[in-house]
Amino acid sequence: MCTKDNQSFWVTKKGPIARHYSTPQKTQQVYLIDEKSGEESQAINRVNKYTNRSYTCGELNTNHIGESVVLCGWLEYQRMNRFVVLRDSYGETQMLVGDKDIETQNVLAKVPYESILEVKGTVLARPKDMVNKKQATGEIEVLVDKLKVVNESKDNLPFNIREFQKAKEPLRMQYRYLDLRFPQMQHNLRTRSKFLMKMREFLVNNHFVDVETPTLFKATPGGAQEFVVPSRHPGLFFSLVQSPQQFKQMLMGGALDRYFQIARCYRDEGSRPDRQPEFTQLDIELSFTDVEGVLKLVEEMLGFAWPDHLATIPMKFDRMTYDYAMENYGNDHPDTRLGFRIKNCTNVISSNKKLVTGDKFAAHYIMFPKEYANLSKQIKETVTSLSKNYPKAKLVQSKVASTKEWTNKISKLLTHQVAAEFVIESKMQDESVLFLAYGDKKEVLALLGKIRLEYANFLENLGISIRQKGMHFTWITDFPLFEISEETGTLQSAHHPFSAPNPEDIQWLKSDPLKVRALAYDLVLNGNEIAGGSIRIHDPSLQRTILDILQIDGSTLEHMLEMLSCGCPPHGGVALGLDRLLSIMLNTVSIRDVIAFPKNFEGRDPLSGAPSPISEKDMKLYHIRSTDKAKK
Amino acid sequence: MCTKDNQSFWVTKKGPIARHYSTPQKTQQVYLIDEKSGEESQAINRVNKYTNRSYTCGELNTNHIGESVVLCGWLEYQRMNRFVVLRDSYGETQMLVGDKDIETQNVLAKVPYESILEVKGTVLARPKDMVNKKQATGEIEVLVDKLKVVNESKDNLPFNIREFQKAKEPLRMQYRYLDLRFPQMQHNLRTRSKFLMKMREFLVNNHFVDVETPTLFKATPGGAQEFVVPSRHPGLFFSLVQSPQQFKQMLMGGALDRYFQIARCYRDEGSRPDRQPEFTQLDIELSFTDVEGVLKLVEEMLGFAWPDHLATIPMKFDRMTYDYAMENYGNDHPDTRLGFRIKNCTNVISSNKKLVTGDKFAAHYIMFPKEYANLSKQIKETVTSLSKNYPKAKLVQSKVASTKEWTNKISKLLTHQVAAEFVIESKMQDESVLFLAYGDKKEVLALLGKIRLEYANFLENLGISIRQKGMHFTWITDFPLFEISEETGTLQSAHHPFSAPNPEDIQWLKSDPLKVRALAYDLVLNGNEIAGGSIRIHDPSLQRTILDILQIDGSTLEHMLEMLSCGCPPHGGVALGLDRLLSIMLNTVSIRDVIAFPKNFEGRDPLSGAPSPISEKDMKLYHIRSTDKAKK
Repeated sequence: MCTKDNQSFWVTKKGPIARHYSTPQKTQQVYLIDEKSGEESQAINRVNKYTNRSYTCGELNTNHIGESVVLCGWLEYQRMNRFVVLRDSYGETQMLVGDKDIETQNVLAKVPYESILEVKGTVLARPKDMVNKKQATGEIEVLVDKLKVVNESKDNLPFNIREFQKAKEPLRMQYRYLDLRFPQMQHNLRTRSKFLMKMREFLVNNHFVDVETPTLFKATPGGAQEFVVPSRHPGLFFSLVQSPQQFKQMLMGGALDRYFQIARCYRDEGSRPDRQPEFTQLDIELSFTDVEGVLKLVEEMLGFAWPDHLATIPMKFDRMTYDYAMENYGNDHPDTRLGFRIKNCTNVISSNKKLVTGDKFAAHYIMFPKEYANLSKQIKETVTSLSKNYPKAKLVQSKVASTKEWTNKISKLLTHQVAAEFVIESKMQDESVLFLAYGDKKEVLALLGKIRLEYANFLENLGISIRQKGMHFTWITDFPLFEISEETGTLQSAHHPFSAPNPEDIQWLKSDPLKVRALAYDLVLNGNEIAGGSIRIHDPSLQRTILDILQIDGSTLEHMLEMLSCGCPPHGGVALGLDRLLSIMLNTVSIRDVIAFPKNFEGRDPLSGAPSPISEKDMKLYHIRSTDKAKK
Repeated sequence: MCTKDNQSFWVTKKGPIARHYSTPQKTQQVYLIDEKSGEESQAINRVNKYTNRSYTCGELNTNHIGESVVLCGWLEYQRMNRFVVLRDSYGETQMLVGDKDIETQNVLAKVPYESILEVKGTVLARPKDMVNKKQATGEIEVLVDKLKVVNESKDNLPFNIREFQKAKEPLRMQYRYLDLRFPQMQHNLRTRSKFLMKMREFLVNNHFVDVETPTLFKATPGGAQEFVVPSRHPGLFFSLVQSPQQFKQMLMGGALDRYFQIARCYRDEGSRPDRQPEFTQLDIELSFTDVEGVLKLVEEMLGFAWPDHLATIPMKFDRMTYDYAMENYGNDHPDTRLGFRIKNCTNVISSNKKLVTGDKFAAHYIMFPKEYANLSKQIKETVTSLSKNYPKAKLVQSKVASTKEWTNKISKLLTHQVAAEFVIESKMQDESVLFLAYGDKKEVLALLGKIRLEYANFLENLGISIRQKGMHFTWITDFPLFEISEETGTLQSAHHPFSAPNPEDIQWLKSDPLKVRALAYDLVLNGNEIAGGSIRIHDPSLQRTILDILQIDGSTLEHMLEMLSCGCPPHGGVALGLDRLLSIMLNTVSIRDVIAFPKNFEGRDPLSGAPSPISEKDMKLYHIRSTDKAKK
């Protein structure tokens, strides 16, 4: 009976065996070189140093049989007050309470799951028919000598620590310390730590210097909304930096010529989904470099640091210009996992003069062949509703039964000749799905860019895999220096006011600024911008000209202009958004899954409920008053 | 003539030769293990990768003779438009312009010092009589083939980049990018980066996980003044964290059982000297540990990470209890470089009942022998003025001509018998200096603690070295759990409300709380607290008791209490103040010298002038109004 129960315990599917630890069971020694202390015993795994345990719960195997051990961890599961699974961050170990050890059995009868236990015991081989090959410690069990309840958990936790009973996100966030016990969150945060360390290692090996720069600074003109911090000086506020941009440039002026920092940055973007008010970027800057230098650096760094247990990434990343991306993907962060690009048919369509509107007229299309053709009512409606955001683009969406039928149907709109020419030009095949848009070029491309992704998502939700697997990196280069602000209709920096114009285009700075390309680049991974940077302006008079064009008051940036005048080397750099990058790397649903304590979608801290009211004393100290009362 | 000038140039004492680069000239390869890319040529020094130079200015030697090279850097110095010193972050190289190269000479005639040059040239051996052995590149010079002025500096910089013309601190801070060009600042920041990396390496090798925690959080009750950050939610504010304390404890509850972070922390301490509103601490926490575990971890980590080029530090640090430190040094951060301790003479002095005041009466003294005896009017006045802050302590300061004379002089005050006994007890010798204080024990010790340091500083200012050299680490243990707030007269945490009481003393928690010791410890280096930590409370009911004793409203810490109730392992940790530690390690005048961009003593940013007024738009967005106008 006992044996049977014991056995059934080990094979239960809903039991602890269903957990999978993706953290390595054998905690390897990471790039260790020299340790000054020669005293240390190599017999002790470093993961147990400075603790009261002799082993983790993921470590014991047949080599340890007969050994007396101390393990600490969470009570994961128990049966009959005799068969206990102890869990810690590294795995699980089966404990066995002797059938005559009534005292321990009585303790186990009362102690709730998730309580903290310390167990002294002896390692035994499991009977052969009870060996669990899938479990790192599956060949042994520990006969309990002494079991101590170190900290009792309460009886009903807000949710169970079981994969198959996973709670909804708001609850997970409110009790993040419970959520972090899940192997997936453990894996995410441990991978993050290792990946960051490998990038540091690469950069330090290449003589980059880790410099911490302030976060309490002056407002930067013309960027994202910055949080403000009232000071003890009446009426005066700090701003929380949106990036270390100015500081890293000043380091270049200060001859710290290879800089990096894993920097906390702040942007108050209200409730944009998948954004965090504070986020982390790997910030890099170096002197005497150029676009090629920075791109190569990032490629080599990511290649070096990319986790071994994930798919390898290419040595060199694809590149395309901003114009090419806009023309072929309808946006500047193309999802290149998706093979189907937007194609130009302006020549064909514009031969019907009636369709041509304005001098920015263009016609483009995207077509999916038979194996990906599914124009259900649902996706049609989604696309129609999408298209309403682009009033200057006209859209045709068709499931092509046959090219002949399509030509006939569309003749009214395009003329028969144009339709026939389009069929030839586009190499249209029967049973394909077509999205054709014409009108204002910008809106046409933007619309088709959106449809392309929406359609792919629609197919993938149906289980039809249209995107390639793996990590698809693409550099986007030759960004425009300026763009027209949608809000004000005036010129603004496409990147930021410190990015250098392409020397070939400086001639147009004043006459045709929108034509000027910047020495700016973004890195796109699987359709998401994960890094951006530029070569910066090092010439103070050029910087002044750019600020003038942007109508930015130079006095707010006097320290930067002065720095450029005091012998500043040419320099450039890049910033990688680590939360986004890790989220894609680890294929998580949200960036919140790679952040230990994220804010929720309202920008609040789900643990403490912050933000909160502050005291009258604080209001006085900082010379402020709230103009509206807090809502209950 | 030319040769002579050339030679005299190399020996000038005020010239560039006077500069010393403490950064290594041969840029070594730091703990590199595996690099996935096998392509890289080992011939290129990594410090030049991704740049347009082929060598740094600190790199060329006789091995490179005949080689065609490209160097970039600052124009450090030039003579006769022909002899040029180019400087970068790694050293200096002598350039020689051919006597017929009039074009380059004309350029040099006009270009200001500190302009950025790019030089192509050929490496030549220097004539034997011009070799400079003190300079890393002193055996070669570079014959200029092409010299390009990449970015011209303005003519009159706010100050020169010359050691012997060093500017005052406010100017150095305002033009920090110029100040950073000095070898000392370069050395400080580069050492900081390396030291931090070595500590990371140690921690990662010991399976600690680097976890980033939020800085926008809820106000912590009963700590330092925290900066507030208004939010878009009316009347609600974030607080900038003063430490990641609560988050690291929640990580322990979340089974991230070995955590570290080099964390930005914020405290608004107004204008306390040598404090920064934002500072960096190395934050460490681990589960299933105890005091010994944490202390050993810190000792081994510092031993591993301590820069090789500095004096070695001991494998184990001295320890003393808080009570011992207070009794022998008059404070809890004893300067143990100074051998002379405070001694107790209460027994002797209290035999004269007239002197005894109150039940906390004590008498202590500190005595300096002949070789350190100098009781000038100046120090006497300083000490007298010091003593006024301790009205409950009476002070005797004497230069003892002879014990006999002293006994006679002091008899009136002490009685002859007490004086004579004191001479014997203290082993007083002729010509020593004595500071004797009696009265309220706390004030007596505090006063003598101050005098001890003041007197040592006074001697050292006279050039008399009384402190031992090197790094003197001491652990202070057994801190009291509570203390009486000077402000309110009520009980407050000596450390913070999460520190665990010593189990032996829990019995006194309610009856005699001041008697309860905490499992808390500080690390003191050369008389400065550089780290502090404790074993934390893991039992929710004990935590609630402590909050009750402190009269802290538990609802502000509900998330912590809840976390402790959900199965929290015993845990503890430590935080090291990196700015302070580096400042002592590098022997700088101020912690500002180990921070790239420090705030000034008013808490302002000297570069940008922040804090600054903000816009009406921002005020509206954050539902606040300034109650006072900014001063002009």
